Amino acid sequence: MSRVLSLAIAGSASAMLLLAGTVANAQVSDKPFEENWWPTEWGPDDKVGAPNRTTPEIVLKAVKLVKQGKVATLGKLYASDIPFFGPRMWHMTIPGTPTGGVFGNNALVFHDELLTTQIGQVGTQFDGPGHIGVRTSKGDMFYNGRNREDAYQRHGTGYVVGMGDLGVEHVAEKGFVCRGVLLDAPGYKGMNPLPIPTSPDSPGIVTADDVKGMLEKQGLDDIGEGDCVFLYTGHGDLWKNADWPKLSAEEKAERVKKFVSGEPGFGLSACEYFAERKIILTGGDTSANDAQPVSDVEGAAAPCHTEMQTRRGIWNIENLEFTQLLEDGVHEFLFVWSPLKMVGATGSPGNPVALY
Amino acid sequence: MSRVLSLAIAGSASAMLLLAGTVANAQVSDKPFEENWWPTEWGPDDKVGAPNRTTPEIVLKAVKLVKQGKVATLGKLYASDIPFFGPRMWHMTIPGTPTGGVFGNNALVFHDELLTTQIGQVGTQFDGPGHIGVRTSKGDMFYNGRNREDAYQRHGTGYVVGMGDLGVEHVAEKGFVCRGVLLDAPGYKGMNPLPIPTSPDSPGIVTADDVKGMLEKQGLDDIGEGDCVFLYTGHGDLWKNADWPKLSAEEKAERVKKFVSGEPGFGLSACEYFAERKIILTGGDTSANDAQPVSDVEGAAAPCHTEMQTRRGIWNIENLEFTQLLEDGVHEFLFVWSPLKMVGATGSPGNPVALY
Amino acid sequence: MSRVLSLAIAGSASAMLLLAGTVANAQVSDKPFEENWWPTEWGPDDKVGAPNRTTPEIVLKAVKLVKQGKVATLGKLYASDIPFFGPRMWHMTIPGTPTGGVFGNNALVFHDELLTTQIGQVGTQFDGPGHIGVRTSKGDMFYNGRNREDAYQRHGTGYVVGMGDLGVEHVAEKGFVCRGVLLDAPGYKGMNPLPIPTSPDSPGIVTADDVKGMLEKQGLDDIGEGDCVFLYTGHGDLWKNADWPKLSAEEKAERVKKFVSGEPGFGLSACEYFAERKIILTGGDTSANDAQPVSDVEGAAAPCHTEMQTRRGIWNIENLEFTQLLEDGVHEFLFVWSPLKMVGATGSPGNPVALY
Amino acid sequence: MSRVLSLAIAGSASAMLLLAGTVANAQVSDKPFEENWWPTEWGPDDKVGAPNRTTPEIVLKAVKLVKQGKVATLGKLYASDIPFFGPRMWHMTIPGTPTGGVFGNNALVFHDELLTTQIGQVGTQFDGPGHIGVRTSKGDMFYNGRNREDAYQRHGTGYVVGMGDLGVEHVAEKGFVCRGVLLDAPGYKGMNPLPIPTSPDSPGIVTADDVKGMLEKQGLDDIGEGDCVFLYTGHGDLWKNADWPKLSAEEKAERVKKFVSGEPGFGLSACEYFAERKIILTGGDTSANDAQPVSDVEGAAAPCHTEMQTRRGIWNIENLEFTQLLEDGVHEFLFVWSPLKMVGATGSPGNPVALY
Repeated sequence: MSRVLSLAIAGSASAMLLLAGTVANAQVSDKPFEENWWPTEWGPDDKVGAPNRTTPEIVLKAVKLVKQGKVATLGKLYASDIPFFGPRMWHMTIPGTPTGGVFGNNALVFHDELLTTQIGQVGTQFDGPGHIGVRTSKGDMFYNGRNREDAYQRHGTGYVVGMGDLGVEHVAEKGFVCRGVLLDAPGYKGMNPLPIPTSPDSPGIVTADDVKGMLEKQGLDDIGEGDCVFLYTGHGDLWKNADWPKLSAEEKAERVKKFVSGEPGFGLSACEYFAERKIILTGGDTSANDAQPVSDVEGAAAPCHTEMQTRRGIWNIENLEFTQLLEDGVHEFLFVWSPLKMVGATGSPGNPVALY
Repeated sequence: MSRVLSLAIAGSASAMLLLAGTVANAQVSDKPFEENWWPTEWGPDDKVGAPNRTTPEIVLKAVKLVKQGKVATLGKLYASDIPFFGPRMWHMTIPGTPTGGVFGNNALVFHDELLTTQIGQVGTQFDGPGHIGVRTSKGDMFYNGRNREDAYQRHGTGYVVGMGDLGVEHVAEKGFVCRGVLLDAPGYKGMNPLPIPTSPDSPGIVTADDVKGMLEKQGLDDIGEGDCVFLYTGHGDLWKNADWPKLSAEEKAERVKKFVSGEPGFGLSACEYFAERKIILTGGDTSANDAQPVSDVEGAAAPCHTEMQTRRGIWNIENLEFTQLLEDGVHEFLFVWSPLKMVGATGSPGNPVALY
Repeated sequence: MSRVLSLAIAGSASAMLLLAGTVANAQVSDKPFEENWWPTEWGPDDKVGAPNRTTPEIVLKAVKLVKQGKVATLGKLYASDIPFFGPRMWHMTIPGTPTGGVFGNNALVFHDELLTTQIGQVGTQFDGPGHIGVRTSKGDMFYNGRNREDAYQRHGTGYVVGMGDLGVEHVAEKGFVCRGVLLDAPGYKGMNPLPIPTSPDSPGIVTADDVKGMLEKQGLDDIGEGDCVFLYTGHGDLWKNADWPKLSAEEKAERVKKFVSGEPGFGLSACEYFAERKIILTGGDTSANDAQPVSDVEGAAAPCHTEMQTRRGIWNIENLEFTQLLEDGVHEFLFVWSPLKMVGATGSPGNPVALY
Repeated sequence: MSRVLSLAIAGSASAMLLLAGTVANAQVSDKPFEENWWPTEWGPDDKVGAPNRTTPEIVLKAVKLVKQGKVATLGKLYASDIPFFGPRMWHMTIPGTPTGGVFGNNALVFHDELLTTQIGQVGTQFDGPGHIGVRTSKGDMFYNGRNREDAYQRHGTGYVVGMGDLGVEHVAEKGFVCRGVLLDAPGYKGMNPLPIPTSPDSPGIVTADDVKGMLEKQGLDDIGEGDCVFLYTGHGDLWKNADWPKLSAEEKAERVKKFVSGEPGFGLSACEYFAERKIILTGGDTSANDAQPVSDVEGAAAPCHTEMQTRRGIWNIENLEFTQLLEDGVHEFLFVWSPLKMVGATGSPGNPVALY
């Protein structure tokens, strides 16, 4: 997740204090126990979640969607001036110019880059099992009932160096190969971008009914098991790959401010519908794919995050770019991607590939 | 490239000094000018290289290789204790436990990770246009005749913050969708792993003839335009994903030492053959995919690196793992992957997907 | 603190697991409440601790110790190969070669360095108010009764970006100017280095009686209010500044292993004596200045750390080098140093100055 | 140096391009050879420079300046929102909350911080031998005629991991103990702050005559051998320690913008005067202590930097705060400080101590 309660975060200093107060308040929710979220259907040892649904049949069916032989890459640019949530950042330099060499009679020289960043949770970012949890009366609980304290990989000194069984490497071993479905909300609702929702009836909240309406309007078969569902809201076009490098620092700063001030996205009803249909991944062009700061559940923060990820192991990839697919009028494709096998990481950067 | 002249590097202090001496010697090679390496066939403005060869026909043909509906992820684990070249490293922590929250009545909490690393050149790593160059009498020249001094993206202060037109984001926009061919050298040569080559006639150097022999033995069609060619040497099994987390620190250290002491790989004759056949990517289970410290060209350091990458824009991905493909006896597959769109980076981490 | 329970840490994998078990066990101590550690004598708002004792009279008296006009710097070298506790590290590169320029007709160029490290807790390191605390039944309590949860400076997202009122900047505003007393334990005990203590009666534990004996043998006035007391054990000579850069990588690794396998240091009786005498700082040539793994208090881990720092605001600086002072036979000097004013940091690197 | 040509840097995008052009132009200056800057008076092997002048007599004389027994710490706060030059930054987090523990029956827990920064060249920052050089026709030359290419400490791979003989650790072994002289330019010129100089006759340029005038007005003895000379301009009060943490993000951003838009400082005539008088350190409350963007030498960028540091080994410490000294009316004091012994670093952070 990248921008829970973004309005407060992007707001004034007093709004910051308000949120800080909320944080300190340490509310709990025991819904996970009341509703028996765990163990999941894949057993108490499972570390993968919904991608377990992928079968050879599903793969072969998805492969059939490749008809034109075209390829689109769906990742956004990573750079120091793109939008970030909170104190996240991207700091890259070139160590030495060049970094190394000269070697051999072919006079080889080379460059590396050196990067410091919250690697799994910046830019195009994937939420894995260790990212989102729920504070319960029994501790902070994550996917498949794992308490973070028990899960952490600790150095002997107590230092947490990774998420242990909640690490993304287990999902990354499996990967995502699926039928990709792109829902074009601006095309359906007649407004681009969708507005930032400030009330529960805002068109910026994409509901289950909206999903059904879009599928029908776009002439798509219903969502099916193993599918990956993507939402285009238009909000992410504030930092389109093609435009971004050409903008001035001032224009970038203004767009970042707008981008992080809230965002249209799925309401919980849409996510519940996807869960019923047994999808394995949500994705979209915003930083959370959850309507913010107001969703269709009163008082909840990014409810799709806890209900889909923590509860069901349906993962989420944020800040995707659909420009080429939209230009080509393509709403169904073979989606192929796997997170990086970073031991103990909470997520992963990515540049997924769509074939159609 | 990750381990040029690894023998010297992993060797004694005096070997280090020797290499340091070599570095200081600043030899040049004007082969790029003598042989008119530039502009490439895609014009002087091209920033992508060989992936330009990919056509819808090539994609559709490669997609037909998916028959069983199976998926393999080819990336290795990223962790602080895997092998690194020189002073490269992987340092990851979890900032705060948890990192943030609590938010909303769903009591959401979250974790991030914080990473410092040479992101494009550690673990499973992709060599993009800014990574490998040649020191000529006219400066350090990279893909398509770009002088690094002209290419660098500089902050106003002179600070180099990226590789400019040599950045990997241009290749990442295109991505790699191709017929993947896995060459099983141990199966062909009857030795696993292949030895580290210490003389030009070592079986650790995979030649053009070896390639033809393997294709025949494995019953594969010849290499074709747009293909991606992968070499299994067995050397990379020193840090197999399935085994690595179970090893002791001592065992890991010993294996790292062995892994970085040199490696079997392609000789230049094999690479030249691939270039003739117009492939777009080489890959393998070692850190360079170039035989080291001795190749089939006297005095050259990792000659495939300069001849394929700098000269022809045929890129390279290192430290892959083929365990599942080998177990399934699969040597031909649909390969789908794209580097991260990191502005100005020299390479990218990855976890490519094979479908078959 | 840098090396609590070092024996376990440096030991075998099973010892690691044992310690990991200890960590998970989450024992508590309510001694701070039972003994009314807070508020301290400087009031509930105090963020400085014992350095509050420093008066103009104390400063003027300490200044009188400068007789020869000589200067010694007491810091150790910072480098990537020095001993570290747990996963701490030092990673420094030069971004660009050079980093920037050329500017002006004076053709100015410049270099920076880029560093990633646990800045306050590596090498010569100072323990400030946010470093050491006690887990009580009411939470983790730090200097002057501050609960870490209340103290943290949080970004609106919940991200902890600093220690808040426990930050070292408050002590750094005050600094340390004091009579420095160097206790020469090897000279007193006739063994250099002192052994790593493995039983409570080990000569590697420096007791209150040892302190009195050393003061007498060295012809020094008793410890007084505002003093800074330093312990030479000889253990730190494993990585002497003058020798370190000349050692081979192998020799360094061996010495690091020895250095982190445990260490001689103060027993709690010595620290209690210092506290009675109202000192403001302890220092020494080891990574903790607390006898380890066995001290004179059964079952305690680095007891001087909690009793001096958390309870009394008597701070601690580790990994100092006394070579020049010892060569000059100097055991009393003007000590001048202040931590860096790093907002919210737990400690500070340093290179203190002794004048005599 | 921290802000050479700051006006251009802080200016519009076109100004940035202009400067980038300048950088690319790669002008050279052979003044160092024409004027025989090397070897310095301390011999060709010297790595310390002017601090070599410090004698016991100088130390004892400076110690006599301590009359009241008062102490001032002169460092500024380090935080992520303070002014930075170019892409420099300060990124600190707390790894784990807490970072480690629980240990022993004293239930010890601990925090570390994790920092990524250009450590020697941010905030209160010291310019050591490896920081400033001159591009000559024979390469980039630094203190005592060291060519950076020869000086670099390289890993066997060619990776530059430090400045070698130009590293700050050699100066840090010696340290600075001196008579500190504080020149109060606003008090002398009747304007606070001094203006940013935009023409050679601006009062924002502090000349040799100004220095003599200030010494006389402040009733101070002339500058002498071994002295450390500090300049108060008032410009640094834009980020006073006492005010900074209370400002809003917007107010901070505005002040940062103003601070980096240029700065008053020494003209070369003042520096030449100091050099004649054989001082060992300059310091001040700005980021360079060199008048910018216009000084008293046409076309030169931060001329005191090359003339004092590269040529004479008279070092420089930037972004100091003199508030307490000014409030106490103190212009002469014992200055005690040493850089960190960071092997191969270009500079050091600091929090120097003034005793008076």
